[in-house]
Amino acid sequence: MYHRPVRVPIDLRHSHRLLNHGPLTLVSAASGDAAAVMAAQWVMPIDFDPPRIAIVMDAYNHTRELAERSNEVGVSIPVRAQADLAFTLGSVSGRDLDKLARWSVPTFAGAEIRAPLIDGCAAWLECRLVREPDIETRHAVFIAEVVAAWADDASWRDGRWQFPDDDHRTIHHMGRGLFAVTGPTVQGQKLP
Amino acid sequence: MYHRPVRVPIDLRHSHRLLNHGPLTLVSAASGDAAAVMAAQWVMPIDFDPPRIAIVMDAYNHTRELAERSNEVGVSIPVRAQADLAFTLGSVSGRDLDKLARWSVPTFAGAEIRAPLIDGCAAWLECRLVREPDIETRHAVFIAEVVAAWADDASWRDGRWQFPDDDHRTIHHMGRGLFAVTGPTVQGQKLP
Repeated sequence: MYHRPVRVPIDLRHSHRLLNHGPLTLVSAASGDAAAVMAAQWVMPIDFDPPRIAIVMDAYNHTRELAERSNEVGVSIPVRAQADLAFTLGSVSGRDLDKLARWSVPTFAGAEIRAPLIDGCAAWLECRLVREPDIETRHAVFIAEVVAAWADDASWRDGRWQFPDDDHRTIHHMGRGLFAVTGPTVQGQKLP
Repeated sequence: MYHRPVRVPIDLRHSHRLLNHGPLTLVSAASGDAAAVMAAQWVMPIDFDPPRIAIVMDAYNHTRELAERSNEVGVSIPVRAQADLAFTLGSVSGRDLDKLARWSVPTFAGAEIRAPLIDGCAAWLECRLVREPDIETRHAVFIAEVVAAWADDASWRDGRWQFPDDDHRTIHHMGRGLFAVTGPTVQGQKLP
């Protein structure tokens, strides 16, 4: 089924909700003529206001190199229909080939950053790095501030995830290309 | 349905797989006679070997204070049947009351740390803080090394999550006590 997303801007104060449930992400960066993308499960919000996230990017990773040069990263949140693409992007290094070109990954331009965002995803965060050299070097952890955020309005309604069908649900990497699909919801009740 | 978990030790090299899919956690700490627990969605692996994780613990948080004193945290991964408990533990401050006592939360002792682990969860990580004062102060991000790990053998088989029923699936906090249950899996295939 062809799905044409309508991207709606997300209030930055609510942008943490896009990542809060711990989905897989595709992290991208661009510098000069080069652009790169990697699959990243190790991404999470760390603050509401200003909205900030932490991202693990290994040393020698090509996306990291471009992110360090540009001080920007794009974070796209892929859906079940993109599981093969996500696994593929996570299985090879951008040092060996241009993954975006090799698999004709459709991208679009963000509003605030130069890193390409991945089409067909459920949501997108445009981020600027908040440089923390010690933690980057010792732990490969990067801090980034969200400067713009977007969601597919078919999946994001009334300020929360409401997936229209299984293909458009977000996914969580369990290892070796096995993904858990974000499942049904349950409302917690406060205990007496 | 009463479920009596059999806790099996997890090889530390594989302990990241317990947290990899981004589940909600219950983070606990103890110091002296005091023990505290908080609900924490902002927890993720950051390294395989040594196995390390990052945890966001707000300033003034009681669990954080005990963790900073003892340099230890317990990370318990709750299941769907514990959604009400998790929401409740995340809704009040340990500075106002002893949450473990107030809701008679069953706990057990870890092998390597003094922080109590929460009974009925799907898996548990025992961790020692790797102190990084700058990042703790500026971003409330704590780094911890996993020194022991355990899983309920009804949910963890052949080195991966295989939940026996919906009640024992892990959960992901979407906000305001709404949790997404970890859903069915899909195996990604590498694109040609």
